[in-house]
Order: sequence, then structure tokens, then C-alpha cells
Amino acid sequence: MNQASPAAPPVLKPEATIGILGGGQLGRMLALAAARLGFKCHVFAPHPDAPAFDVVRRVSRADYTDTGALARFAENVDVVTYEFENVPAETAAFLAARVPVLPDPKILAITQDRLAEKNFVAALGIRTAPFAEVSSPAELAVAIERVGRPAILKTRRFGYDGKGQAAIKNGSDPVSAWREVGGQPCILEAFVPFEREVSVIAARGSDGAVACFDVTENEHRDHILKFSRVPAALGAQAAAEAVRIAETIAHKFAYVGVLAVELFVLGDGGLTVNEIAPRVHNSGHWTIDGASVSQFEQHIRAIAGWPLAKPLRHGRVEMTNLIGQEVEDYRRWLVLPGAAVHLYGKTSVRPGRKMGHVTQVFPE
Amino acid sequence: MNQASPAAPPVLKPEATIGILGGGQLGRMLALAAARLGFKCHVFAPHPDAPAFDVVRRVSRADYTDTGALARFAENVDVVTYEFENVPAETAAFLAARVPVLPDPKILAITQDRLAEKNFVAALGIRTAPFAEVSSPAELAVAIERVGRPAILKTRRFGYDGKGQAAIKNGSDPVSAWREVGGQPCILEAFVPFEREVSVIAARGSDGAVACFDVTENEHRDHILKFSRVPAALGAQAAAEAVRIAETIAHKFAYVGVLAVELFVLGDGGLTVNEIAPRVHNSGHWTIDGASVSQFEQHIRAIAGWPLAKPLRHGRVEMTNLIGQEVEDYRRWLVLPGAAVHLYGKTSVRPGRKMGHVTQVFPE
Repeated sequence: MNQASPAAPPVLKPEATIGILGGGQLGRMLALAAARLGFKCHVFAPHPDAPAFDVVRRVSRADYTDTGALARFAENVDVVTYEFENVPAETAAFLAARVPVLPDPKILAITQDRLAEKNFVAALGIRTAPFAEVSSPAELAVAIERVGRPAILKTRRFGYDGKGQAAIKNGSDPVSAWREVGGQPCILEAFVPFEREVSVIAARGSDGAVACFDVTENEHRDHILKFSRVPAALGAQAAAEAVRIAETIAHKFAYVGVLAVELFVLGDGGLTVNEIAPRVHNSGHWTIDGASVSQFEQHIRAIAGWPLAKPLRHGRVEMTNLIGQEVEDYRRWLVLPGAAVHLYGKTSVRPGRKMGHVTQVFPE
Repeated sequence: MNQASPAAPPVLKPEATIGILGGGQLGRMLALAAARLGFKCHVFAPHPDAPAFDVVRRVSRADYTDTGALARFAENVDVVTYEFENVPAETAAFLAARVPVLPDPKILAITQDRLAEKNFVAALGIRTAPFAEVSSPAELAVAIERVGRPAILKTRRFGYDGKGQAAIKNGSDPVSAWREVGGQPCILEAFVPFEREVSVIAARGSDGAVACFDVTENEHRDHILKFSRVPAALGAQAAAEAVRIAETIAHKFAYVGVLAVELFVLGDGGLTVNEIAPRVHNSGHWTIDGASVSQFEQHIRAIAGWPLAKPLRHGRVEMTNLIGQEVEDYRRWLVLPGAAVHLYGKTSVRPGRKMGHVTQVFPE
């Protein structure tokens, strides 16, 4: 894959229809951003009560493997994008044969596989945690020799919010970790003693222009993002390096749309790439209320073949996720001066489920 | 009508459905604001390609006199609101018998009639241009005697964007003005030599709290709003007086929702009320990108029985309407740093039609 490979996407007229695969809060916020620009959206999702269904006129409620529904969807939209990285490869290929799909599905093949993603990043000369491939308990023993302890065993595919992961500490039994992740193809990553977690939300237009939002600092609880703060507590040099890493990745993918690069800041000020998300990202939600353009609008602009905006930040910004039952406290947030409350319209509250978020902007 | 008359509206849960009468850009932006807060919306409008239809899951495409469609609409929503002041009285009454309608339809009876509105304002001790009722050419002659020339003859009902108006200058024939407005019941208003036009967007919650946005200065072209600027070039005392007038009107109506009060600033610094719009208003569009809460969200909060937010302005703000063919220039605006572009998804461009708007925020 190189910068020239995907054909330039069409430039959409404002009355065009954008197809969105996935009906969660990210799809919902993408559709709301598209509506500001005059676009129609058509959401394809399997769940009957997908939050994104509520904000569009046309929906396809069908499984991602339903080729009849996919074919009708493709006929009704001018471009397809997605809100989640685990779009089945066959679904993406089926659609791409009929309608432009952006970002290019070839990128999914890399970001869906932790090993391929780490290899891709390492090949760019960008630092990652030491890692090794693991396909069996025997390979795990060799990998531990190489990577050292403590380390984290992660399934190569379908992990999110800490799922599909097991720690291997000093003295703990590797075989039980192997069982814990289901004995699937894995990657063993050295545990990096990081000082903070940051992310860069980068947009790349079909003209090759890249616009990054300011580096965001993230705080997780139980492996789920809880707070984002902008700007990150990071030296100017490290911040510039984080942005450069995101730009390098976006260009190398010949990416069209928004991607997020999660990084660890080490004790020596160095950065390692933890993960790439080929989509809008929770750590970019602050941009809706905290910047002159949101990550969602940048994504829509990019896949529409429209020029990106230059993001201007309104101040220091804090984003708080409302997780599970925390959402029941929404009235407290409604009366907090300057707080922008977002609720995702999810019908049932479950522990660990992202139900909404709140953004606060402070003078800098 | 007094502050205690309407029953307190119910407090909606976030999963509730809000019914919106009218499918234009105001309905569209109301629905987008409601979606941020987790609400579902159901839009009722007669036009098949109403812009608001594109951003909601459920629509009723029917005439406002279709009682069958109205009854089904009322069954499917938890509260009804409207995006335009000319909702037929029978429609509002039919719905209000089945479901809470906010703002109270009784207010429409006043604001739909320029004479009733002027009498209402004058009874509050708030200054208006001198005016007189006109129901015949003979009454017009008397009214001109009383009000003087130059004056403007306006139909009492269904006027907007300069429609239903005729100027009566020195030497011009009153009877031709009477014919020009169709010989309908009218009001004659003295022409007030104003220095600038301003407006106040006020929100009143069901708890009686009022929150006003900063006074906005408006510039019209061909009777259509072209630019809004905030803050208005107005002394602190006049600005406070404008806000006090809007608050007084909101309280006297026992209003629940957002209303706009248009005022003229006279040469002596005095203010006269020109018009009241019982709805979100074009001169408040800047609040989407220029403030911590938008007029649309304030309206939704109010009719949902939720607390209002305290609006904080992000800086000096300018809003430019894209009217008719001006919208074809949207790419120029897309690349202007800091400009937030809104396109309304209207399928056909017509002269004088509001097609979109652009907001620019500047450091103050």
C-alpha cells in the first residue's frame, strides 16, 4: 500500500447520501455532523434499537453478512463509511465493488490485526512496545523469553475496552493467560511503564492534506476511557512528535477520513504507539464543543471529497464519559455552567456501556 | 393570560419523543439539538422534501388540517412544539387536547395578529412605533391622520420577510397601498427612523427561569436577514433594557421555550419592539457555534421540562445567511479558517430562499 493506491473518491454534492456502517454513538454523531453540511445519511446496523437510527430517515436493519440488504444499501448511497474497525472483510469488499468505501477497506485488514498493525508501525520506524507473535503455549514461552515480564497477552483480533487481554506478571502462569484469552492467535506485548496516555486525532483529505487536533491526554478506568483533557501535559517537542507520528501513519495509509493514534508517554519523554483506530474516536469527542470543527465533520468532509477545516480550539477542554449508571446523574451536568451534555439515546443501561459524555471548555 | 395559567409540562426522560410541527431548517436544527440530548424526534410537515425529515426516524407527511394524521402524531409523541408561528389555531387546539403543546398555543393567537401583538406589548408599558387598526380605505385615511407619514401598512396576519407590506410615503396614494396588501385587515405603523435593528433571543424554562443570549445586531437585505453580529453595537444600558424587555414579554406570556424579540434602536438610544417571534429565530443561529449552548438546545430543554443552561459566548460572532444562489459558493466558506458552515439540505434553490448559514467566531 502506498500513497497513490486508492482512486480519488468522488466529490459529493450537498444533497448526496452518505452510508454509515454501524449504528452506535459514533455513527450517530457522524450523521449529526453530516446533517449540518446538508447531507442525508443512511445507517446500516443489525441492532433494532441502534442509536444512530434515530437521527436519519433511511435505515437498513440487517446483518453485516446479508448481501441482499448490502446491495440495496449500496444502491441508495453515494459513499460508504464505517464507525467501527471490525467491519467484516467480506462486507467491506462486497460494498467496495459497488460504491466507494472510505477509508479504504485495505486499511481494516491491518488495523483489525494487532500483529499486522504493530508490524506496520514498526516498519515506519515508529517506536512500539516490544512485541512477539504467539500462536501456541510453546510460542508463548519463547515470546516471554524475548519480550520479558511483565507483559500483556492480547488476541490479535476483536479486542476492545480491555477485552481479549490477560496480564503475565512475574511468577504468574502463562498457560492460564493463554486459556484466559481463549487460546486464539495472539500478540505478546511488553508492559511499558508509561507516565501518561495521549492520542492524536488526525484527518486526511482526499487531496492529501492532513489536519490534526491538539494532542489529547486520556485517563482510563477499568480499561474504558473516562476523561480526556486538552491540551495534554506534554512538552512542545513531544506534542509535535506525536502529531508527526499520526501524520506519518495517515499518509502511509493514503488515508481518507479521521483516524486516532493512541500513544504512551514514557518516563524519558519518548512515545510509543499503542493502537491505531481507523475511525472517529472517543478521545476526540471534545472537538464537538471545544473546537471550530469536530472530528465528525472532518471525517465527513474527507469522505465527501470536501476540503478539511483547520481546527481552532476554544480553550482548555475536558471531556468526561458517562459510563453505565453514571448517566442517571445527567441533571447534575445539565446545570453545570458551560457544560455541554451529550446523551446517546441508548435504551438500556449496562455496566461499562458508554451512555453519554460531557464537555467543558475553560478559558486558557 | 398570566404567569400561572398553563399547567406545568411533564419532565421528559431522555428516551422521549418530541413532536415538531414544521419541517424547515428551524425544525431540522431543533431535531439535531434534541438528538444531542438523547431525544427522538417526529416531524410533521406537508412538504415531501421537508429538510427536517432527513434527520429524524419518524415523519408525518400530511396537511396541518389532516386530523387523522394529527391524531396519530399526537399518539406517538410526548410533547409537541413548532418551528413557525403560523400554525393554524385549529391544529394547535386539536393537538393540545391530546398531548402537551409548548409554547402554549394561546400565545400564537397573539403573535399571529400584528394588532393583538402590538396591543400586548403596549399594555406592558413597552414602547412600539405608533400604530392604528385599519379595516377599510376609510379607516386607513383616519389612521394616516393619527400615525402620520411615512408609514407602513401591514396585513395583520401571515406576513414574513417583508411580504404583506406596503409603504405609504409623502404624496403616495393610500388606496393603492390598500390594494397592494390585498385589502385585508391591517395595521398601520409609523415608520420609525431607527439607527440599527437588534434582537434578543430569550429562553424561559417551565420553572420560570429566563436565560437570554447577548443582544444581536441584525442587517437585512430585501427584507431578509443577511447578517447577525454579536455583541450588538449598543451601550450597556440599552443592552440591559433590551434584555429586560424580552424577559418581561417571556414572563407575561408564561412562555415555555425560546422566543425572539426584534427591536429598533432609535437615534435617542431608545428602543421600540418591532416584532415577537414565538420560536427559535434566524438571528439566534450564531449560538450553535458561538456559545456554550444553542437557542435550539435551550428550546428543547425548556419544552422537556429540563433546566436551562447559562449561555457563555465564545467570542465576537458573525453569522452570514446564504440566500438563494449564494449557497453555490459554499466551498469558499468551507476553507475560511474558523468558519462553521451549515447547509439546510434544501433540494431546490430559489431567489430569497434561506439555503444555509455560516458562523465565524473571533477572539474578543
